[in-house]
Amino acid sequence: MTTAGAEPVSREERRRRTESVILQQARCLFAEEGFERTTIRAVAGLAGVDPALVMQYFGNKEGLFAAAMEGAHTGGTARTAPRAEIPAAVLRDLLAKFESTPDREAAVTLLRNFLTHHEAKRIMRDEVMCAVIGDLSRTIGGPDAELKAALLMSCIAGMALGRYALELPGLGDAAPEDIERLMRPALEALLGEPE
Amino acid sequence: MTTAGAEPVSREERRRRTESVILQQARCLFAEEGFERTTIRAVAGLAGVDPALVMQYFGNKEGLFAAAMEGAHTGGTARTAPRAEIPAAVLRDLLAKFESTPDREAAVTLLRNFLTHHEAKRIMRDEVMCAVIGDLSRTIGGPDAELKAALLMSCIAGMALGRYALELPGLGDAAPEDIERLMRPALEALLGEPE
Repeated sequence: MTTAGAEPVSREERRRRTESVILQQARCLFAEEGFERTTIRAVAGLAGVDPALVMQYFGNKEGLFAAAMEGAHTGGTARTAPRAEIPAAVLRDLLAKFESTPDREAAVTLLRNFLTHHEAKRIMRDEVMCAVIGDLSRTIGGPDAELKAALLMSCIAGMALGRYALELPGLGDAAPEDIERLMRPALEALLGEPE
Repeated sequence: MTTAGAEPVSREERRRRTESVILQQARCLFAEEGFERTTIRAVAGLAGVDPALVMQYFGNKEGLFAAAMEGAHTGGTARTAPRAEIPAAVLRDLLAKFESTPDREAAVTLLRNFLTHHEAKRIMRDEVMCAVIGDLSRTIGGPDAELKAALLMSCIAGMALGRYALELPGLGDAAPEDIERLMRPALEALLGEPE
């Protein structure tokens, strides 16, 4: 809907904005209520849209959860980065996402879901992480490519849990630049030289 | 209690065995029921001892949880290893613990507790991880010692979650030797050269 005096907005841009509002509300509700108790109807109500629109955009609750997890995870620049830039990009994606958004707590709580709900774990693994690890391992290449990609994502996830969820001594209040400075050589060593 | 024909057992050894049985049952119950719903009385019942004995050994539920977490975490050889051997020892401790014991599932579920219960998180951080990170950072030395130790433990925890809880593609069914081979250089790069 365009209001008087505002720039006209394309149909595509309107859809993108509506999707973004739905996903933001979905992340909050999944975080607060957990996977099982969250309904399409409740998310639609919070986003101020018709439940049928949520279904049209995301299919079902599983699809909505997968989309919400993907948005809460890495921003995605790492998925298309050249091999040598993957470590820096993975760190930048994660820190940019979690340091700067007000819904860091919601994102962390969302990650809890995969540890406590079997279906959430399946979606997180099969519909989110499989795709990320697949993209990264194709760029990494070589016989251990998939294992390297999985270890890379695991180390990053562990860092996020240690910093944002557990708030470990030394890590909880470290400067993001110091985390990047120490973690990047570690992730580079993990990838090793290209084959 | 010694039975006819058995070797006599010292008082110290009997206590050690009883503690071990109590901790094993505590780990299972914390894993199944979560921190809040687990009681000293229920753990004592499963271990076949008097609740007063559990209180005598571990103080209260928080103390029992801390002891159970510590046992489920690293075996501890890393805490006293020389600096250069910390990465290998941390990996060996974790893989030995989680690969070989039948209660791997219980250990993973126990780790869930710190993400879902505020008091469990506090104990995990203040009574388990603080001590481990303190020991490691004293050996690591230098200005970033505590941050390096926290990142090391976070990467290891992330690897465990990716392998045992999420069962990521490439990582869930990797050989432990391959994980060690790839992770060790990464953890060594994280620690860097001694100051």
